[in-house]
Amino acid sequence: MDCSFLRSHGAVRDTAPLIQCLTNKVVSNISANALLAIGASPAMVDTPGESRSFAQTASGVLINCGTPNNEQYIGMREAIAGATTAGNPWVLDPVGAGGLHERTEFMHEVLLQRPTAIRGNASEIIALAGTGVGGRGVESTDGVEAALEPALKLSRETGAIIGVSGPTDLIVQAGESPRAISLESGHPMLQKVIGTGCSLGAICTAYLAAWEDPFAAIIAAHAHVGVAGSVAAEKSTAPGSFAVAWLDALHELSPAAIEKRISASEIADLAGLA
Amino acid sequence: MDCSFLRSHGAVRDTAPLIQCLTNKVVSNISANALLAIGASPAMVDTPGESRSFAQTASGVLINCGTPNNEQYIGMREAIAGATTAGNPWVLDPVGAGGLHERTEFMHEVLLQRPTAIRGNASEIIALAGTGVGGRGVESTDGVEAALEPALKLSRETGAIIGVSGPTDLIVQAGESPRAISLESGHPMLQKVIGTGCSLGAICTAYLAAWEDPFAAIIAAHAHVGVAGSVAAEKSTAPGSFAVAWLDALHELSPAAIEKRISASEIADLAGLA
Amino acid sequence: MDCSFLRSHGAVRDTAPLIQCLTNKVVSNISANALLAIGASPAMVDTPGESRSFAQTASGVLINCGTPNNEQYIGMREAIAGATTAGNPWVLDPVGAGGLHERTEFMHEVLLQRPTAIRGNASEIIALAGTGVGGRGVESTDGVEAALEPALKLSRETGAIIGVSGPTDLIVQAGESPRAISLESGHPMLQKVIGTGCSLGAICTAYLAAWEDPFAAIIAAHAHVGVAGSVAAEKSTAPGSFAVAWLDALHELSPAAIEKRISASEIADLAGLA
Repeated sequence: MDCSFLRSHGAVRDTAPLIQCLTNKVVSNISANALLAIGASPAMVDTPGESRSFAQTASGVLINCGTPNNEQYIGMREAIAGATTAGNPWVLDPVGAGGLHERTEFMHEVLLQRPTAIRGNASEIIALAGTGVGGRGVESTDGVEAALEPALKLSRETGAIIGVSGPTDLIVQAGESPRAISLESGHPMLQKVIGTGCSLGAICTAYLAAWEDPFAAIIAAHAHVGVAGSVAAEKSTAPGSFAVAWLDALHELSPAAIEKRISASEIADLAGLA
Repeated sequence: MDCSFLRSHGAVRDTAPLIQCLTNKVVSNISANALLAIGASPAMVDTPGESRSFAQTASGVLINCGTPNNEQYIGMREAIAGATTAGNPWVLDPVGAGGLHERTEFMHEVLLQRPTAIRGNASEIIALAGTGVGGRGVESTDGVEAALEPALKLSRETGAIIGVSGPTDLIVQAGESPRAISLESGHPMLQKVIGTGCSLGAICTAYLAAWEDPFAAIIAAHAHVGVAGSVAAEKSTAPGSFAVAWLDALHELSPAAIEKRISASEIADLAGLA
Repeated sequence: MDCSFLRSHGAVRDTAPLIQCLTNKVVSNISANALLAIGASPAMVDTPGESRSFAQTASGVLINCGTPNNEQYIGMREAIAGATTAGNPWVLDPVGAGGLHERTEFMHEVLLQRPTAIRGNASEIIALAGTGVGGRGVESTDGVEAALEPALKLSRETGAIIGVSGPTDLIVQAGESPRAISLESGHPMLQKVIGTGCSLGAICTAYLAAWEDPFAAIIAAHAHVGVAGSVAAEKSTAPGSFAVAWLDALHELSPAAIEKRISASEIADLAGLA
C-alpha cells in the first residue's frame, strides 16, 4: 500500500516535539532515550501541581499506567486536562488493563476525556473494550487478530486511533469511513527488552504531535519502532546488545529504509464489524 | 560437588514464571531485563490495592527494600500476604539492612511472614541476623566467611534459604540437616554495575518459582548470575559494555557452560554453628 | 591554563566517596553507574526518616529536582539538613527551574541552606538567578555566555560554585576574588542520551567530597564527563552505543588523557560583573 504515512518521520525531526511522559518507573529511562533517538524532546513531568500547566505547553502527553501510585494518578488527571484544554494530543498506554482492577477503573475514567490514540497489546485492548478478561501481567496472551473487533469498538466509543502491538501490528480508526491497517515490521526480540512497547507509546505521541493526520502518525510510529527492531536483530541475537542496537537504529533509520522493510495492508472488509 | 541443582536452569525457561517485583527505582529496569534474559516474565506491580491479588496469580514475589516509601511499604505488605495465601515463594532482598533504621524495622516485621529465601551481601545478612552493625550504604563491608554463622541463625529463625553474595557466595539452609555451600562463580566487575545484585534477587525468585527444591534453586540462581559476570568480563573490562555483555550472557548461557565455570563445595562442619 | 585541578581525579578513586543521590527516577540508574565508573560509591537514599541520618554519614549529597514528589521533597529537606549539620558538601541540580513553578519555589527555599555547588544548563541557572524566564522542559534554550552574569549573581547570593553546562561549560565562583572558567570538553552527542547532565551533578558531588578546593573539583568533574563524551563520540555516532561507550570512558580515562582533550581558559574581566 501507499507509504505516504512515512512523511511524518521527517516532521518529528524537524519540529522536535516536546513530549511529556507520565509513565512507569521501569521504562522512563528507555522511553526518554527512544524519544531523543527519533529527534523528539522528552520531559518526564508527572508531579501534581506541575503536570497541568506543563501539558499545556508541551507538544503532546503520554499516559502510561505501568506503575501508578496515588500521586501519579493525580498528575495524570492534571496532564490530561491540560492537554485537552490546549488541544494537544495525548496517548493512553493501558499497561495491565483487565488483570489489574484499580488501574483499569482509572483507564475507563480517563477514556471519557477522549485520548487521541490508545496503544497496547491485544489483551489490553480487548480488556479495555470490555470484550475479554485481560492479560497476564504486561504480556499479551491474545492474538492480534482477535483484537480487531474490540479495537474498532474502542475507537468508535472514544474517538481514538487504536494501535495494537504484536507479531503483526494493527492500527484501527472507526468513524464514518472506518479503516484498519495490518502492519508487518517488528521482530520477536523486541519482547525480550523491557520498555520497547512503552517506548512505542511515547513515540506515537511524538508522531501525533508532529503530524496532522493521526492515523498516518500512528502507523508510522509503529513502523519506525518495528523496523528498528528488525535492524537490531541483524546485529545481535542477545537482549543486552539488541537493546543498544535498537536505540541506535531508531536514531539512524531513514523513511526510505523503513519503507523497504515493512509490509502494510489495508483490511478491506470492516462493514460487518464497524 | 554434584551440580544437579543446575537442572532448575531449564525449568525457568520451560515454565516462564511470572515474577512480581516490588523493588527499588534504581534497578527496576535492569532487574526486568535480567528476568527476561533468563526466560522469566517480569511484572513490576507494587501499587497498593493491586499488589495482593497480583501476588496470588504471580509465580513468585520479590521484596527489595532499596528505595522504599510509604506507598511501597503498603504494597509490599499486600504482596507478601498474597504470596503467602497462595503458597507462592517470596524473596526478601534486605538492601541497606542495619545502617538504615526504618527499613530495617520493616524487614524484621516481614521476616515473621517467613520468606522462602533471603538474599543479600554479608553486611546485610549479618545486620539482619542481629549480629553486626550493618553496611555502608549498599556496599558490603564484611567478608562472606563472617556471614556463615549469622546466615545459619537467620535461616533457623525464619525458615528461609539464605544467599550471601560476595567474592565467594554462600548459600545456607538450617533445619534438621543444615547445609552450607560455598560457590565460586562471579567476577569483581559485577560490583561496578548497579543492580546486578538486585537482579540476582529477582532471578532467585524465578528459580524458586520454577523448581521444587529451594536450596538447589538458590544455588543455581547465584551460579547463573555469577558465571554471566565471568563471561562478560572476558568480553569487556569497562562497566558500560560489561553490563551489556552480562545481560547477553544471562540469555545465552547453558547449564553445561555454567557447570564448567563454577566451583561449589559443601561446608562440612556445621555442627558447632547450626 | 594550569590543569592542576585534575589532581582531584585520583582523589575520587582513592577515597571512593559515598554519594547520596536524591534524584529523579529517569536517571537514577545511569547516575549510579556513572558514580561507580569514576570510582565513587552511590547510595540512592531519599526516603523520609532515613535521609537525614544517612546524609550525615555519607561523603556528599546530590539534590536533583527532575521528578520530585511530596515524599521526596521531605527527604530532600532532611538530607540537606543532615549534610549541613555534618559539614558535608551538597549539590543542587535545578532541573526545570523557571518553567515549573512548584519545584522552583522549593529550589529557592533550599538555596537559603547554601549548597556547595549548583550545576545546571544556562536556562536553569538564569531562571534560578531570577534573571530569565526558564527553559523548555529540561532543555537549555539560552546560550552559556548569557549565563555568566546570572551565575556570578547566584554564586554571590548563595556562596555556591556554579557550573553551567553547554557546548562550552562555564564554572563560576563569586567572592572577594571572583573567578570564571570557560571549559571546552564535551560533545553534542551527550545531549542525545538522557541523564548525562544529571550524572554530571552526581559526579560534581563526588569530586567535592574527595577534594578540598571546590572550584577545582567542579572544573575537573565537568572535564571528566565532557571528555568521556568526546572519547565516546569517536567510537559511536548513535545514542545507544554512545551511552555505553561514555560509561566505559568515564571508567577508563586518566587525568593525562583528560588534559590532552580539554581547553580551559580564565575569563579575565569580571570586574564589571561581580
